[in-house]
Amino acid sequence: MLKGSLTLRIRWGESDPAGIAFYPRFFEWFDVATGALFATIGEPWDRAFRDRDIVGVPVVEASATFHAPVRFGDEMTIESEVTDLTDKTFRIDHRISVAATLCATGFERRAWVPRPADPTERLRASPIPPDVRAKLAGH
Amino acid sequence: MLKGSLTLRIRWGESDPAGIAFYPRFFEWFDVATGALFATIGEPWDRAFRDRDIVGVPVVEASATFHAPVRFGDEMTIESEVTDLTDKTFRIDHRISVAATLCATGFERRAWVPRPADPTERLRASPIPPDVRAKLAGH
Amino acid sequence: MLKGSLTLRIRWGESDPAGIAFYPRFFEWFDVATGALFATIGEPWDRAFRDRDIVGVPVVEASATFHAPVRFGDEMTIESEVTDLTDKTFRIDHRISVAATLCATGFERRAWVPRPADPTERLRASPIPPDVRAKLAGH
Amino acid sequence: MLKGSLTLRIRWGESDPAGIAFYPRFFEWFDVATGALFATIGEPWDRAFRDRDIVGVPVVEASATFHAPVRFGDEMTIESEVTDLTDKTFRIDHRISVAATLCATGFERRAWVPRPADPTERLRASPIPPDVRAKLAGH
Repeated sequence: MLKGSLTLRIRWGESDPAGIAFYPRFFEWFDVATGALFATIGEPWDRAFRDRDIVGVPVVEASATFHAPVRFGDEMTIESEVTDLTDKTFRIDHRISVAATLCATGFERRAWVPRPADPTERLRASPIPPDVRAKLAGH
Repeated sequence: MLKGSLTLRIRWGESDPAGIAFYPRFFEWFDVATGALFATIGEPWDRAFRDRDIVGVPVVEASATFHAPVRFGDEMTIESEVTDLTDKTFRIDHRISVAATLCATGFERRAWVPRPADPTERLRASPIPPDVRAKLAGH
Repeated sequence: MLKGSLTLRIRWGESDPAGIAFYPRFFEWFDVATGALFATIGEPWDRAFRDRDIVGVPVVEASATFHAPVRFGDEMTIESEVTDLTDKTFRIDHRISVAATLCATGFERRAWVPRPADPTERLRASPIPPDVRAKLAGH
Repeated sequence: MLKGSLTLRIRWGESDPAGIAFYPRFFEWFDVATGALFATIGEPWDRAFRDRDIVGVPVVEASATFHAPVRFGDEMTIESEVTDLTDKTFRIDHRISVAATLCATGFERRAWVPRPADPTERLRASPIPPDVRAKLAGH
């Protein structure tokens, strides 16, 4: 299925008083990595969310295991891969490394959520369009 | 075991262009809630980390499931509870609600990590001191 | 003119590797304080932005001087006061203290910006409604 | 004096419910840009702060004027330039543009602050070392 990678340098403001990345930042990087993956299939979020009239692809589940700290100044590699596709959701697995050290692994499950007619209305997932599904599947 | 709760109002800057909380913020709130729990047992992090000579209680695993969005301006209740204690780690479960709506559930597993003599040295967990363990157990 | 204050405890994730607040966080606190001020005049942002059909009150200028660091665990007091009102903008001055120590002073100038008919259209300030102006003036 | 530029793409989580960058993020980008400038003179912060035994180069004053919004997905160019040097401080001016549109201008004044012997001791600026001063001056 679809996969990709990117590199990011950890910012001063992403590090905590222990000198290591504050753990919620890893999920911010997962989000950046998933966004980058969508850009590679011609569906950059800024344009895709508007053109396809969705609020986005909100995360319904996320999880991470932290193996080694990422420190201020480190350059990380994030490898991401779609690992599951259901009718309305998809899962992306992420691996964050610094040089040869695997620092964190995790995943996001995201849903395809149309923009409701009334903005206060409850958000509901709907089927992923076939062309997006094909791209996520790596076809 | 130890439990507690707190309320937080979601900030403008914690919301994304979809008008709902950006998902990594939930983990920031888990972190705030765990910190608040430590304060209730007389171990506020700013003092405890220094007095006990630890880098902190870094998260080794974190997970969340998102049931309903939290919107800008909502007041959340975060209920937190220690649900597991091992020699060197503990798990805290969190539930985030807005009024009667359960919005997110998740957990953090954290380790007790002494400050290494050399700051570039590898971080290693060590046994949770008996008095802290007793407090986390709710004794 | 309108004034108010609030207290906030600095979060672990708001501190940097130097153990002090990362400076952009002060502006996040200014934003929280301005939002709180609007709530005290019956114009909480989540409702006011929708009811008055504005994108918000975006900042057109912001400035801060940092006198003393705010450290992880500190409880801050933020005193805020509207200090200038023009046709389309207003200025709020902020003072952040920890106990008797003045840590930062600064201001935000914000504009009243209606939601454009087309979301990609250029944002333009328009006159602050008279009732809001009166409340900001402290009448 | 020393100058440089970098490009950054605005992240989903850096945008607010108005779909534009939350204004404190501009200061985070100023911080990233100043860090990048130090890297170009062989003083990357992670190494320089440790080798030179400073807590960092904390900001003593920061200011920004916002001319046009930066929207989610935009690619920004940040041009930065050292514009003033005193014995213990330096000023960096920043300009953020998206394509031909100037979006924000601002500056940071930062101080050279040694690590105190006792971490709870008051932070005090000291003279910028001559070699760093020469590099900031662009020599």
